[in-house]
Amino acid sequence: MSDPKSKNLTWHEGQVSRQDRERKLDQKGCTIWLTGLSGSGKSTLAVAAEKALADRGKHTYILDGDNVRMGLNNNLGFSPDDRTENIRRIGEVAKLFTDSGAIVFSSFISPYRADRDAVREIMGDGDFVEVYVAASLEVCESRDVKGLYAKARKGEIPEFTGISAPYEEPSAPELVVDTGDQTLEQSVAVLVEYLDKSGYLSA
Amino acid sequence: MSDPKSKNLTWHEGQVSRQDRERKLDQKGCTIWLTGLSGSGKSTLAVAAEKALADRGKHTYILDGDNVRMGLNNNLGFSPDDRTENIRRIGEVAKLFTDSGAIVFSSFISPYRADRDAVREIMGDGDFVEVYVAASLEVCESRDVKGLYAKARKGEIPEFTGISAPYEEPSAPELVVDTGDQTLEQSVAVLVEYLDKSGYLSA
Repeated sequence: MSDPKSKNLTWHEGQVSRQDRERKLDQKGCTIWLTGLSGSGKSTLAVAAEKALADRGKHTYILDGDNVRMGLNNNLGFSPDDRTENIRRIGEVAKLFTDSGAIVFSSFISPYRADRDAVREIMGDGDFVEVYVAASLEVCESRDVKGLYAKARKGEIPEFTGISAPYEEPSAPELVVDTGDQTLEQSVAVLVEYLDKSGYLSA
Repeated sequence: MSDPKSKNLTWHEGQVSRQDRERKLDQKGCTIWLTGLSGSGKSTLAVAAEKALADRGKHTYILDGDNVRMGLNNNLGFSPDDRTENIRRIGEVAKLFTDSGAIVFSSFISPYRADRDAVREIMGDGDFVEVYVAASLEVCESRDVKGLYAKARKGEIPEFTGISAPYEEPSAPELVVDTGDQTLEQSVAVLVEYLDKSGYLSA
């Protein structure tokens, strides 16, 4: 190990590549980036789609508010700068998971187009699958699963996306899923079919 | 999806758990945290051990300077505060990979005991395997694979661990590997045997 040459040799010969991992997992690593308003159904879709893929033997992981905001990004708030850094870090982590061969779902509002495009930029071609979970503000607000819209309307939550902070729709997402029109089963089917046809579900 | 109850039901029923992933991969997720001086052989050991595990069909990933310092942590320098935040973020990412079921190697000097202990703290019991890659400063400096020690001695690199910045040895690591005494093959064998005996290599 003290000889640089043999060290380099070891590195190159011993290296396990992304392709090696993908072959073993029989899939292609990618990031399925779900974006949409609060209540649009991002997490519900991620969970159901992950289950559908796991049933086909695929290796998946979900990045969401629960495991990211409380951990990696627990030192970030909701200002525009912090939102940007939040998405940047999530993008970098998604990139690592993608490189590991996993099919990773990222489930965040990610309201700024520039932030999402920056994530697309750092990823390899085809590694970033932007899915617009489209549901109108009216639909999301009528669901108001967590009661957040009511609070936001009363001004109790500042900078709430769709009410007091902007949501910028994707201009060219790989896929649009309309959870206002489709059942969950339909949305899952559309997403899984897209991944299958695009070659992500085999090595 | 507009009914909160059925949404929650979907979440719980549809969820793919860490145990599900581990069963499929036939291994237990964990973080093998390699710590030691520059030139101690952390990356060489990580690469060789990863290859040995991949040859046994295990799913692994390496977090190192190449994929972390240039991505997730590209907005951090080498001040004590930045080093602490560097290790904190790596720890949080390692935690996510561990939760995904991967056997993840982290290959960073990580010179401060408090920073490493903070990572251990956020991980579940048994998820953090601290490996002290022990090689004396003399050995590391004599290797000086990257010529960094020579520069540090000339004062061209400030805050260089072992020369002008402290390295705090682990007080109770799970494993000590002495790359000054052992061959690479011996170090790999010791590490893999530890993982095997500890139950990480089956679900």
